[in-house]
Amino acid sequence: MRVVVDVMPKPEILDPQGQAVAGALPRLGFHGVTAVRQGKHFELEVDDTVDDETLAKIAEGFLANPVIEQWTVRRVDA
Amino acid sequence: MRVVVDVMPKPEILDPQGQAVAGALPRLGFHGVTAVRQGKHFELEVDDTVDDETLAKIAEGFLANPVIEQWTVRRVDA
Repeated sequence: MRVVVDVMPKPEILDPQGQAVAGALPRLGFHGVTAVRQGKHFELEVDDTVDDETLAKIAEGFLANPVIEQWTVRRVDA
Repeated sequence: MRVVVDVMPKPEILDPQGQAVAGALPRLGFHGVTAVRQGKHFELEVDDTVDDETLAKIAEGFLANPVIEQWTVRRVDA
C-alpha cells in the first residue's frame, strides 16, 4: 500500500522558496498566482503490518519538523 | 482557488533523500516500510484568470525539472 505524507511550512513560518517562485512568475509573464508555498511530498510503500499510529510517528519524527512544519498522512490506492 | 503541484523524481532517478529515510527507519525500530521517495509539494493560490494551460506551463517550467522529475497538477477546494 502507498502512503503519501505532505509536509508544509506552518502558515506563520516564512517560506523563501515559495516566495521566490511567487515573485518571479509575474516577471516571467505569468499573472494571477497570488501565493506559492513549497513543502515536501513523500511517497512510502508500506506493508499491511504498518498501522496508522506507526505512520503518524514516522511522519512526525522523521519526515517533518514539528516546530516549523505541519503535515498530512493519507493512504492511497497504488 | 488553490492548486497543488506534486513533483517527484522520475522512477529511474536515484533518490538519496528517500533512500536515507527508508534505510534509517528499520534501525529506528520501524519495520514494514519498503520504499520511500521524496519530492516537492507546492500549493499555489490562483485567481480565476489562470487556466489549465498556464498552470501546466508554470509547473513544467518553474516548479519541476522535466529532465529528472515528473509532476501532477490538480485544483483543490480551499
